[in-house]
Amino acid sequence: MSPGPVLPPGLSAARFGRALAAFEAIVGAPNVCREGAALAPYFDPFAPVADARAFAPAAALLPANVDEIRAILRVANAARVPLWTVSTGRNFAYGGAAPRLAGSVVLDLQRLNRILDVDERLAWALVEPGVSYFDLHAHLRERGLKLWVDPPAAGWGSVIGNTLERGFGYTAYGDHAATQCGMEVVLANGDVVRTGMGALDAGTYAGTAWPLYKPGYGPSFDTLFMQSNYGIVTKMGLWLMPAPAAYRIGEIQFAREDDLGAIVDTLRALQLRGTITQHAVVEGAIRRAASIAPRARWYAGEGPMPEEAIAALQRDLGIGRWNLHYALYGEPEVIDVQQRIVERAFAAVAGARMLSARYAGNEEPQGGGDRNMAGIPTMSAFRMLDWRGGEGAHVDFSPLCPADGRDAMRQYTLVKTRAAEYGFDYYGGFTAAGRHLHHVFAAIFARADATQATRAGDLLRALMSDARAAGYGVYRSHLLYMDYAAAQYNFNDGALLRLAQTVKDALDPQGVLSPGKQGVWPERWRGERGYT
Amino acid sequence: MSPGPVLPPGLSAARFGRALAAFEAIVGAPNVCREGAALAPYFDPFAPVADARAFAPAAALLPANVDEIRAILRVANAARVPLWTVSTGRNFAYGGAAPRLAGSVVLDLQRLNRILDVDERLAWALVEPGVSYFDLHAHLRERGLKLWVDPPAAGWGSVIGNTLERGFGYTAYGDHAATQCGMEVVLANGDVVRTGMGALDAGTYAGTAWPLYKPGYGPSFDTLFMQSNYGIVTKMGLWLMPAPAAYRIGEIQFAREDDLGAIVDTLRALQLRGTITQHAVVEGAIRRAASIAPRARWYAGEGPMPEEAIAALQRDLGIGRWNLHYALYGEPEVIDVQQRIVERAFAAVAGARMLSARYAGNEEPQGGGDRNMAGIPTMSAFRMLDWRGGEGAHVDFSPLCPADGRDAMRQYTLVKTRAAEYGFDYYGGFTAAGRHLHHVFAAIFARADATQATRAGDLLRALMSDARAAGYGVYRSHLLYMDYAAAQYNFNDGALLRLAQTVKDALDPQGVLSPGKQGVWPERWRGERGYT
Repeated sequence: MSPGPVLPPGLSAARFGRALAAFEAIVGAPNVCREGAALAPYFDPFAPVADARAFAPAAALLPANVDEIRAILRVANAARVPLWTVSTGRNFAYGGAAPRLAGSVVLDLQRLNRILDVDERLAWALVEPGVSYFDLHAHLRERGLKLWVDPPAAGWGSVIGNTLERGFGYTAYGDHAATQCGMEVVLANGDVVRTGMGALDAGTYAGTAWPLYKPGYGPSFDTLFMQSNYGIVTKMGLWLMPAPAAYRIGEIQFAREDDLGAIVDTLRALQLRGTITQHAVVEGAIRRAASIAPRARWYAGEGPMPEEAIAALQRDLGIGRWNLHYALYGEPEVIDVQQRIVERAFAAVAGARMLSARYAGNEEPQGGGDRNMAGIPTMSAFRMLDWRGGEGAHVDFSPLCPADGRDAMRQYTLVKTRAAEYGFDYYGGFTAAGRHLHHVFAAIFARADATQATRAGDLLRALMSDARAAGYGVYRSHLLYMDYAAAQYNFNDGALLRLAQTVKDALDPQGVLSPGKQGVWPERWRGERGYT
Repeated sequence: MSPGPVLPPGLSAARFGRALAAFEAIVGAPNVCREGAALAPYFDPFAPVADARAFAPAAALLPANVDEIRAILRVANAARVPLWTVSTGRNFAYGGAAPRLAGSVVLDLQRLNRILDVDERLAWALVEPGVSYFDLHAHLRERGLKLWVDPPAAGWGSVIGNTLERGFGYTAYGDHAATQCGMEVVLANGDVVRTGMGALDAGTYAGTAWPLYKPGYGPSFDTLFMQSNYGIVTKMGLWLMPAPAAYRIGEIQFAREDDLGAIVDTLRALQLRGTITQHAVVEGAIRRAASIAPRARWYAGEGPMPEEAIAALQRDLGIGRWNLHYALYGEPEVIDVQQRIVERAFAAVAGARMLSARYAGNEEPQGGGDRNMAGIPTMSAFRMLDWRGGEGAHVDFSPLCPADGRDAMRQYTLVKTRAAEYGFDYYGGFTAAGRHLHHVFAAIFARADATQATRAGDLLRALMSDARAAGYGVYRSHLLYMDYAAAQYNFNDGALLRLAQTVKDALDPQGVLSPGKQGVWPERWRGERGYT
């Protein structure tokens, strides 16, 4: 059960009631969620805190189009109602659809769900925020277009939402922010901006360079609207991967914990030289196992799984202590040569066990992870929640890691040690993207257990502090630690945050858009209530 | 001879004299250029206007470091002296080092010329604005590092300057803005910001993810400082290409003018499928010829070169009407297979003549263009100036083009026709980068001929207008048409420019940084003096 709604800070029930009535006049009563089951999806389902009201919404609105969004902004600016924008699908690891500032009104864009255009020759799509990876994939299939999406871990996610949060996937188009091209953004004052070549206003989407060339002319603004509260993105172009003639999916299992360094160094060289072009994944034994069987099969005790249990799990399932998943895409004769290069490179790691299979471009593999690498969205990521049994929840710690074996070993050891201290398994892995790795560790706990939840939250904070001391920072964070994460990026006494605040105040003087997102507070909230 | 300096608008000679004295106290007398030969390099050498004073500087300053830049900003803000920032090398096609606003003081960063760090394993460098491609290339050679730079057409260019203006090169790292990672920026108020992971302040450059992961945490600002006047970039990270085991350089000559469509469509498919990963170039016959012999060998008359002369030139030099230059990088066995794929694809274009040569990774080819594709900076681009004889000059028209054969033919026809009307040859080509092409046309004229210069300027404006009517926009422009180009990006009554102005006013309230750059004027200049 979610707790009840919370009023926007500083607003009386009467004033908020009038604002809500104005909102309702814009979007219609069925598109205003005031309480109970209607409002429940806008609470943090996995909140790693004792009091879930910390991130409780006041209400949620579901506008149908850009005009309704502009009308909502007029009301919000006049009444000073903070809005928290979400799209569709949710990443429960970082707070779901719940707002950073309790009492915000969630602006849910899931009804803006048109796929506006897809171009097969130039390989792009233009979508609205309510379009999920499932939707886009189904659309491509229905029309028989030879294009792939790059799905994130959970295919229900919004293409725009995932991209703006800098999510990533598994194919050669795995860096979602990098494959974004062109945006339409509604600013806090209601102005509708098209970025880059979209400002040419050619009347149509196709035939322009909007989704083809990112920067346009003059300064480029798109990345300003990622992980930010500077505007509401209502359209976005993205590049799609032409379906390859063939592809090969490979898994390499490594026996020892300290193989990680050699894996990362070998993989980096293969990626920087262009042999492996996709986001390859190095999964720890426990994360690999969780997609097959529950933890209790090997260990039912409290505290982190002992080494012997991990060794047993490796043997039983025939998996490695580390498991590398990679894919090669292209002409069959090219990927066959590339496969030999990959095998040659990893043969240097003693005991590496190599498996791979080649598919025609239109064939589908069966495993969830493999399907992701073949551009097919799945929900397999959610199986991790069964690991500890019960109604599982997780919060994630995701430090950026240089793609250097020494850094990877250092981060792994740091996380494993501290997690064990708090009673959690090292449930993690690394996604490799050339010069950097996304290291993602999930603290998995039983949703109903408030003590475990709080301990997971405490662990996250300890890990962020440890990482900072070692020179590492996170690329994303749960609502609870957005300020803490931002404060770590403190060169020159916080110059980057000062810049972010200056831009915020210029673009959103009333501070109505997603206050506190990624630690950026508008002027009216800074200094008071403990916000930085 | 350059004309004399011009005072900053609105400043008396006495007030400007006091500001200049204050600047001199900061940088020292030898680093202030007041007039004559010292100031000459800061005028536009190829100005396509009758009156070169239109873009005349008031003076130029050469600070030695960030502290001096901050001190200069304090004076400039107090005295309201507009500064125009340049680095080293110049692109004469767009105005060289001359300021948009006559009477600006040029801030020349060529003395900040340290290569701060280079990492061979992770393949990046961190440089200051005064570092040229020649410098960086020589540094890598001296240290024996197996890394390549991606040179632009003229190797004297600043790595930072070229990247910020969104220049491009010839290798797999040809999109310079895309290979930028991490910046240090001095804002107008003197605040020093490090973007992305650089804000972690780890004390050193190496060992952090600053040059490894672009976005950092929260909104990302780097692209805000490209083609812009929001700050002064004093350090920049860039990714370098690991020297390949081998490479192959190919040229394909096509016989007919209307082969262009098929060339572009075939090339796009090869790039989107990852066979050709570099910025391939499709050169028109005249541009190809200009690197070999002067125009007078085939045609000495006025007006554009007739078709028969172009045909004669093709025969004499053994070149195509269109000439595709491409390169393949990687393991020898991979690029051999890729070469066969390329040949198979272009065999569909009747009469295509294919030449190619394979080199070991440490071998050097001889031709200027080929050397660029092998990561070796040259100044061969300047040979184009001999085309018309005398002291040649050029101004460039550079519309973005969708990578679609129909669009390329349409732009080519449009430019060729209008250029002929103004008496200019179609001296141009296309650089192909997957989904888009950079179409670059140069109007070449005798520097001493004011009538020809003015006609070149008029042609540029006519071409921009033609392109806009057809739905195309330029990615860059000469000082003369910065406002005109910006005004073409006019969706929703100029919403993008309004956004750019809002950010400008927030970051630079006194309007001291590069007023008018890319059409963005600070509040104090908007509305008056005809600026938009």
